[in-house]
Amino acid sequence: MPQESARSIFSLMEEFTVRPQPDDPRLTRAVTGIDHEGRTIATAVVMERPLTLFLNGREIVTMMTIGDHPDYLAVGYLLNQNMLRSEDRVIGIDYDDELETVVVRTDRETDFEDKLKKKTLTSGCAQGTVFGDLMEKFEEVRLDPDAVLRTSWLYALTRKINTVPSLYHAAGAIHGCVLCAEDRPLLYMRDVVRHNAIDKIAGYMHLNHSAHAGKIFYTTGRLTSEMVIKTVQMGIPILISRSGFTAWGVDLARQAGLTLIGRAKGKRFVALAGSERIVFDGDTRAVEDEHPRLARKASLTEEDAA
Amino acid sequence: MPQESARSIFSLMEEFTVRPQPDDPRLTRAVTGIDHEGRTIATAVVMERPLTLFLNGREIVTMMTIGDHPDYLAVGYLLNQNMLRSEDRVIGIDYDDELETVVVRTDRETDFEDKLKKKTLTSGCAQGTVFGDLMEKFEEVRLDPDAVLRTSWLYALTRKINTVPSLYHAAGAIHGCVLCAEDRPLLYMRDVVRHNAIDKIAGYMHLNHSAHAGKIFYTTGRLTSEMVIKTVQMGIPILISRSGFTAWGVDLARQAGLTLIGRAKGKRFVALAGSERIVFDGDTRAVEDEHPRLARKASLTEEDAA
Repeated sequence: MPQESARSIFSLMEEFTVRPQPDDPRLTRAVTGIDHEGRTIATAVVMERPLTLFLNGREIVTMMTIGDHPDYLAVGYLLNQNMLRSEDRVIGIDYDDELETVVVRTDRETDFEDKLKKKTLTSGCAQGTVFGDLMEKFEEVRLDPDAVLRTSWLYALTRKINTVPSLYHAAGAIHGCVLCAEDRPLLYMRDVVRHNAIDKIAGYMHLNHSAHAGKIFYTTGRLTSEMVIKTVQMGIPILISRSGFTAWGVDLARQAGLTLIGRAKGKRFVALAGSERIVFDGDTRAVEDEHPRLARKASLTEEDAA
Repeated sequence: MPQESARSIFSLMEEFTVRPQPDDPRLTRAVTGIDHEGRTIATAVVMERPLTLFLNGREIVTMMTIGDHPDYLAVGYLLNQNMLRSEDRVIGIDYDDELETVVVRTDRETDFEDKLKKKTLTSGCAQGTVFGDLMEKFEEVRLDPDAVLRTSWLYALTRKINTVPSLYHAAGAIHGCVLCAEDRPLLYMRDVVRHNAIDKIAGYMHLNHSAHAGKIFYTTGRLTSEMVIKTVQMGIPILISRSGFTAWGVDLARQAGLTLIGRAKGKRFVALAGSERIVFDGDTRAVEDEHPRLARKASLTEEDAA
């Protein structure tokens, strides 16, 4: 895609169109306890709630989630499990806070019921076959060969994402995923479960018809096989993390032609797949190694989210 | 249990009876890539492999694992899902490295087949019901009211665990769980998936008839509901983490009478449940705040494992 038309699509969405809402009272709860000297203290802990997902009247799964954006989470989960197709039209989403349920309705009768029935009969437990579904579309995806990652964007993204107010200050124990275009973070979703944050981004993009809004995905979590599969299935050609790699994640990224960058901290990073998309235009002398306080803040975030 | 007899059981097991094997060539793989200046580099990434688990000829689940101790992982998973009971005798475990399968055989016909059949019929997908199974035994468990945690033990455990050679040095992206008795780390298991590390400890304890070998559980990961449920079902009354809490994890710990300690770093920690078991005998003046290098090392470990 020429730079110009890419820009016009990107410009439709503002920086941090979705950003963390650290002050949302539903996301944390105040609790009391004692500290290392036996003193009574008050602190905040992040919420973790069950959410049972139905598709057209059929129960699919119960997820643990922080509880924000149940609509995006539900639709994104179904998309990333290949239970919804990108051309499916969602005609209704009913979220019931009290029953902890979310129901997604489509105009097409989905074919997943037969698939699911067959699979539960052959394997007994769907956990393994859910993974099978995940891989179904993987080999068909063609990632944009013309997408590039300028290192100046990478450094700008990291700085912006690390300094936006997030829930960590309130409670810790949370993961973050950010969809970005060039040097601009667009959607920043968080959850207690890492892949929920990705699913929320997929759901947002589907419901807002912004499938091509971004080309770069930033995650606080590890670059596992699951992260790589979901990124590829969303058609995003570049995945960046401040955390480490797994061997299978690297294999899958190489197979799909995904640009896979990990251990991104300060000016440092390591690319283990798709490095031909990287343009080294960043001035590494201008990027300091992470300020100890920032490094500590960021690493605590990840640590608490471990 | 009187202090004396508790000691005699603890003394049967040496410190670090199981410890990380950072040099095991099966756990990491060498890969090449480029760094932030475009230079070609060689690095190591942690392995992540599928392992399909069968119980008495029935396929249960496909797990992602680093691959060490498939026997302990298989048995521990079945125990923690309540598919095996503590009185069940395992008469054989066949691990096939090439097929990536592990088969657990018991002398009793397990009743989980009926349970599983019924549940897949009612819910369609076993993911939610697996969680239902997890909770099944939770309310019956009585945790030892006489167990104590001396803060001097806590500080000694943290120091020993943080300084034992581990896989982080090779590759990062890994979680750790340690079963401890008083100030002694006994079993230190690691995996790419946090709950696999717990399951391996449960499997080890079952196969080695050492159900009461330890009273304290240390984890690098967050104190989520799943961590709390598994710890309680293993009958362990004290759970410590350097990471944060979730609200439901705190609720469940209070309900079960579990001592729940988080954000344990240097001399600091926060107890949000069961603090009556804590004995403040540690000299906090003698425990320095974490040395910057150690803190960085430890936090990187967790960060890469996020």
